[in-house]
Amino acid sequence: MGLECPKAVVLVSGGLDSATTMAFAQSQGFLCYALSIDYGQRHISELLFAKALCARLKSVEHKVIKIDLTQLGGSSLTDLSQKIPTGEAIGIPSTYVPARNTIMLSVALGWAEVLRARDVFIGANAVDYSGYPDCRPEYIKAYENLANLATKSGVEGSAFRIHAPLVDLKKSEIIKLGHKLGVDFSQTVSCYQAEPSGAACGACDSCRIRKEGFSVAGVEDPTVYI
Amino acid sequence: MGLECPKAVVLVSGGLDSATTMAFAQSQGFLCYALSIDYGQRHISELLFAKALCARLKSVEHKVIKIDLTQLGGSSLTDLSQKIPTGEAIGIPSTYVPARNTIMLSVALGWAEVLRARDVFIGANAVDYSGYPDCRPEYIKAYENLANLATKSGVEGSAFRIHAPLVDLKKSEIIKLGHKLGVDFSQTVSCYQAEPSGAACGACDSCRIRKEGFSVAGVEDPTVYI
Repeated sequence: MGLECPKAVVLVSGGLDSATTMAFAQSQGFLCYALSIDYGQRHISELLFAKALCARLKSVEHKVIKIDLTQLGGSSLTDLSQKIPTGEAIGIPSTYVPARNTIMLSVALGWAEVLRARDVFIGANAVDYSGYPDCRPEYIKAYENLANLATKSGVEGSAFRIHAPLVDLKKSEIIKLGHKLGVDFSQTVSCYQAEPSGAACGACDSCRIRKEGFSVAGVEDPTVYI
Repeated sequence: MGLECPKAVVLVSGGLDSATTMAFAQSQGFLCYALSIDYGQRHISELLFAKALCARLKSVEHKVIKIDLTQLGGSSLTDLSQKIPTGEAIGIPSTYVPARNTIMLSVALGWAEVLRARDVFIGANAVDYSGYPDCRPEYIKAYENLANLATKSGVEGSAFRIHAPLVDLKKSEIIKLGHKLGVDFSQTVSCYQAEPSGAACGACDSCRIRKEGFSVAGVEDPTVYI
């Protein structure tokens, strides 16, 4: 890629969605600056997979910013005394982390402004997902609006774009897209309580959605289960 | 205050504006949960003054969340190799920290959701200020809109309110309001490069605005200068 490629900040978690999002951003000609947030998630193997992903896809840089959300509590994903629910949830499940995407996008926005990048990518998805409010298209739109009021670059007229290329796709469609882009799904982890090796429980919401996605897409599922 | 008082998360920095904001929130009957962000600001005495403020005003709780924004750079407030500008700035000055208020409000929003509080207070001000984009009323409004799309509580119909009670006030009016509410200004620090004791440089933008505010308000200025 040449020097004229635009820069983008890409939020990466080490999961299937963010791996596909980063591969997609690259396919669109963006130079990717990857950002992971270490917020105290119990599936810390995510961050190891994020690091390996950035090395494989050759991101220009990969920053990990620590924000201890366990201090706030309120989620089974950050509170080890709570159990991760299995089976289909009614309403928004306990794995929801209050304001997580808003916090992550805000750090991404800050970095984008420093880099003079106008594009931020997030792998949010509102079809086959856990029902989190901060994954919906109307949320992404509202964030983009905020970003342009919040920043020096926005005020000076260089508009920010928040890209959520997966937001309207089914899990099976995301898997097909990632497959086409050459994403190595064996090196992604989606499970809410994955082992340090990345081995998945196979029972949580995230595992259930992922497993079904591979089956519907007709793509071989390389996930290692416990 | 009784058990029925509503809860509010209040962002406190240890400065004059956030001290007045917290005193104002209390005067409106809110139980205050104070939140400070340790983002790597060079004027770390802020956080000591914030702690003392919360003790004096008897906040229900005071959390300090660490987010290392020095990793992102781009501001003379977090980059010790840059000099703090003095005198009147043209445009948005180098003390602007990219996306700072957006990041701080996002953590406040997360905590508010956990507490089942619907109110968040921030001491942003768009009159006598440094021209930061994320201090303007239209920014606050856009954040409130986002907050209601971002959260479980918002989706379930219990609307969030982002209060910026100082947003339209002149510095002298803020000082008069704080004075009326009994704020001890000698225990607040505004200087961008305050000494650990809180002693102010008297030359930076923040010192200049504060000094003039006291003079116009006709309130005795208790600030200790270096």
